[in-house]
Amino acid sequence: MTVVADHAVVAQSNGRERSSEIHIGLLGVGRVGRAVVRLAPSAAKVAGQRIRVVSGLVRDLRSGRDCPLPLTDDPGAIFASAPQVIVEALGGTEPARTLVLEALARGIAVVTANKTLLAYHGEELLAAAWAAGVPLRYEASVIAGVPFLGTLARRPFAANITSITGIVNGTTNYVLSEMRRARISYADALAEAQRCGYAEADASKDVNGFDAVEKLAVLVRQLAGVRVAAPAIETRGIGGITAADHEHAAELGGTIKPIASAAWDHPQISAFVGPSFVPAAHPLAKIEGSTNGICLRDRDGREVSFIGPGAGPDVTASTILDDVLEAALERALWHEPAPAANTAAPSTPWFVRLASRSGLLDGPEIASVCARQNVWVERTSSLDTRRGGEGRWLLTYPCRRDQIERVTTALNAATNGEAAVWRALA
Amino acid sequence: MTVVADHAVVAQSNGRERSSEIHIGLLGVGRVGRAVVRLAPSAAKVAGQRIRVVSGLVRDLRSGRDCPLPLTDDPGAIFASAPQVIVEALGGTEPARTLVLEALARGIAVVTANKTLLAYHGEELLAAAWAAGVPLRYEASVIAGVPFLGTLARRPFAANITSITGIVNGTTNYVLSEMRRARISYADALAEAQRCGYAEADASKDVNGFDAVEKLAVLVRQLAGVRVAAPAIETRGIGGITAADHEHAAELGGTIKPIASAAWDHPQISAFVGPSFVPAAHPLAKIEGSTNGICLRDRDGREVSFIGPGAGPDVTASTILDDVLEAALERALWHEPAPAANTAAPSTPWFVRLASRSGLLDGPEIASVCARQNVWVERTSSLDTRRGGEGRWLLTYPCRRDQIERVTTALNAATNGEAAVWRALA
Repeated sequence: MTVVADHAVVAQSNGRERSSEIHIGLLGVGRVGRAVVRLAPSAAKVAGQRIRVVSGLVRDLRSGRDCPLPLTDDPGAIFASAPQVIVEALGGTEPARTLVLEALARGIAVVTANKTLLAYHGEELLAAAWAAGVPLRYEASVIAGVPFLGTLARRPFAANITSITGIVNGTTNYVLSEMRRARISYADALAEAQRCGYAEADASKDVNGFDAVEKLAVLVRQLAGVRVAAPAIETRGIGGITAADHEHAAELGGTIKPIASAAWDHPQISAFVGPSFVPAAHPLAKIEGSTNGICLRDRDGREVSFIGPGAGPDVTASTILDDVLEAALERALWHEPAPAANTAAPSTPWFVRLASRSGLLDGPEIASVCARQNVWVERTSSLDTRRGGEGRWLLTYPCRRDQIERVTTALNAATNGEAAVWRALA
Repeated sequence: MTVVADHAVVAQSNGRERSSEIHIGLLGVGRVGRAVVRLAPSAAKVAGQRIRVVSGLVRDLRSGRDCPLPLTDDPGAIFASAPQVIVEALGGTEPARTLVLEALARGIAVVTANKTLLAYHGEELLAAAWAAGVPLRYEASVIAGVPFLGTLARRPFAANITSITGIVNGTTNYVLSEMRRARISYADALAEAQRCGYAEADASKDVNGFDAVEKLAVLVRQLAGVRVAAPAIETRGIGGITAADHEHAAELGGTIKPIASAAWDHPQISAFVGPSFVPAAHPLAKIEGSTNGICLRDRDGREVSFIGPGAGPDVTASTILDDVLEAALERALWHEPAPAANTAAPSTPWFVRLASRSGLLDGPEIASVCARQNVWVERTSSLDTRRGGEGRWLLTYPCRRDQIERVTTALNAATNGEAAVWRALA
C-alpha cells in the first residue's frame, strides 16, 4: 500500500477524527484571545466540526473575570485539560517560547499569531515541531487576513521566489494614506488612526518599523530558507514624513508607502524596512488605508500578489481558527454542494454604446427612453469621437439585463441604430 | 493519543515517506504534460524528494515519440505501473472523467488542471475522492500561477466569502489590454496575441467566455458550496468591443476588462461572464496583459485579492507538481534554514528632501554634489512649495545608503540644511 493510501486510511478509519470535538487550550486572554473564544462557535459551524476552548491561561486571574472560560494562572493546568491544539495569544517571547516548546514536546499542535516569537525563536520552535512530528501554524503572523504563508510552505516549487516586497503593517499604511488623502500632518494622522482603532495608544513598535521588520524576518526564513536576525535589517520609521513630502512624491510620479522588502541569492540577502517612494504603476501603490499586500517575484520575473486585511482581533482570530482546523484535521474539509440553485444574472450598471445610421438622439431624449424602463443614466461620455464614426457612450445606474435590452430596442427603433451593452462593475 | 498525534506518528514512522520516490502516472502528453515531465526534476530538487514520471498515456503512440518516457495507449498499463499520483493532462471530459474515477477507486491520488472536467463533473469526482479517502487536487484549474483554491478549501472560516469578481482568462485580458494600449482593433490585438503565444490558433473558447465560465463554475462550487451549471451563467464574448469603446470607457473613468463575477446568498446566486466596464479605482482595473486576478469579498465587506499569472504550460505544470507534492506528502515540507546570512541593505533609488536655512542649491549644483559620490539624479520635483517652507525634492538612480548619506552630508554642509532620504522602489 502506498504512503498516500496509508494516510487516507488513517484519516477515514479513525472515528474520533470526524466526530470528536476539537479542544483548544488558550494561552493569553487579551483582545485576540477573547476574539478566538467569541468566534470559535462560528468557525465550528462553517467547518461542520465541534470546537471548544477548554481552558485559558492568564497572568492575573482578576483580569479575565468576564471571559466565559475556565481560567487559570498555572500553565500545568492548561496541559492537564488535554487540548488537541494550543493557541498561543500571549505575545512577546517569554513565557510564550517556553510554553510552546512544552506543548510541542507533549505532542500538542500549536497555533500562534506571534511574529515576535517567530522572528526571534522561529528556528528553535520549527525544529522542535518537526522533531515531535506536530503541527506549528502561524498564518496570522503576517498579513493576518490573507492565507499565503502556510500555502507557500507546502508548495515551494511553483513560487520559486527570489524577492518579496510588501506593505505588512496596517497602522503605518493607514497613517501615510491619511496624510496624503486629507493633507494632514503625521501627528494628526497618527491621532486619527488611534481614534479609529487603527493604531494602539503606544504605536511606537508600528511607526518605528519594528513590527514590520519582525514580519520580514518571518517571511525571509519561510520563503528564502535563510535565517535573518530582525535587528540586522535596515529599519526606518515613518515619523519624518511631511505633508510636503507627499505632494512632491505625487509630482515625481509616485506615492510614499511603508515598505518591507527582501531579495536573495543564496546565501546573500539584501533587505530593508521603511517608508519608501513607490512608483504609481507598482502593484503596492494603490493599497490604501490599513490594507496590507505583498508581491512575490520569481526567478523568471513572474509576480504573484496577495492583498487583504492585515490585522485586528477578529481577522487574526479567524485565521487562527482556520489554522486550528487545519492542524487538527490535516485535510481539506468537505461539504456536499447545495442542490443546483437558480442562477440569476445580477443587476449591475451598464456601459452602453449607441451607434446610429440616421442621426443621434441627444442626452435628454436618451434619458427619457431609459426612464420609461426605470433605467437611469449616470454619466455620458463627452469625448469627441475622433475616428469618424458617430456614436454615444454612457454609463447607467444598476438595472437588470431585460430592462437594458428594452431600452436598446427602443433606442434602435428610434434611430435605426445598433446599440451594444456590456455590464459595468459598481 | 490525540488524532493529531496519530497523523504525525504515521508521517514520521513511515520510512518510505521520507525516502521513497513519488511515482507519477501521466495521462496526456501534450504541452502541459510535457512541461510536467520537463519540470519534475526541478520540483524534486526544491522539495528534497525524488519524483519520477513512470508512464505516460497517449491516444496515438506516434505522437509522443520524442518524449523521454515509457508511453502507452492503454490506460490499464498506466495503473499497472503503480503510480502514487495520477496527473490528468488530457483536457476535456472523456476519457478524463472515466480514468480519474478509476484512479480514485484504486486509491490513487489525482492531480488535474482540467477546468472543463471539474465544471461539468466536479461533484461526482469530489464525492468519489471523499468516499475513497484519496486526494483530488486541481489548484492549476483557475489562475494556474496563484495558489488559493486549495488553501480556501482547507480554510473556509476566515474567508467567509459572499462574492467573487475576477479576471480569470489571460487571452482576453491580453487582447483587451493591447487594444487599449496600442489603440488597435480587436482583430489586430487577437492576431498579436496569437503571434506572442497568449492565444491559441483557435481562440474561440477564450474569446467567447466559455473558458472563463467553466472556471467560474469551479469557483462557485468551491467557495459558495453551490452547484452551478456553466451554461446557466450569462456569458458574453469580447468580440464586439471597439477601439472607440475603450476611449469612451476611459473618458467615463474606467476601463474594459474580461470579468467573471458571482455573488451569493444561499441558495440564490447571481453571476455573469463578459467584458465589463471597471472603474479605475477597482482592484482589477490595473491588472494588465495576460495576468489574472481575483477579489473575494466577505460578509463584512473585507476584500482579499490574489493576482498572478493565469496560464501557460510551465506555470500550469509547476502548480501541478506542487499539487503532486501536497497530495503525496500531505504535510508542509521542512528545510533547515541556511546559516545566518550577511544581511546587506540593497542599492535602490532614493527619494530626497533638501531643506535649507541658508538658501537652496540649484539643480546643477545638486547634481554636481551627487556626481562626486557617483550618485545620479533622475528627476527633480517642479511643484511649487505652497506651504511657505523652502525645499527641493528629487529622485535618484539606484545607489547604496552610504553613498546617499555622503551626498546629504555634503549638501547639508553647503546649505546649512537638513536633508532627509527614503528609499524608492524601482
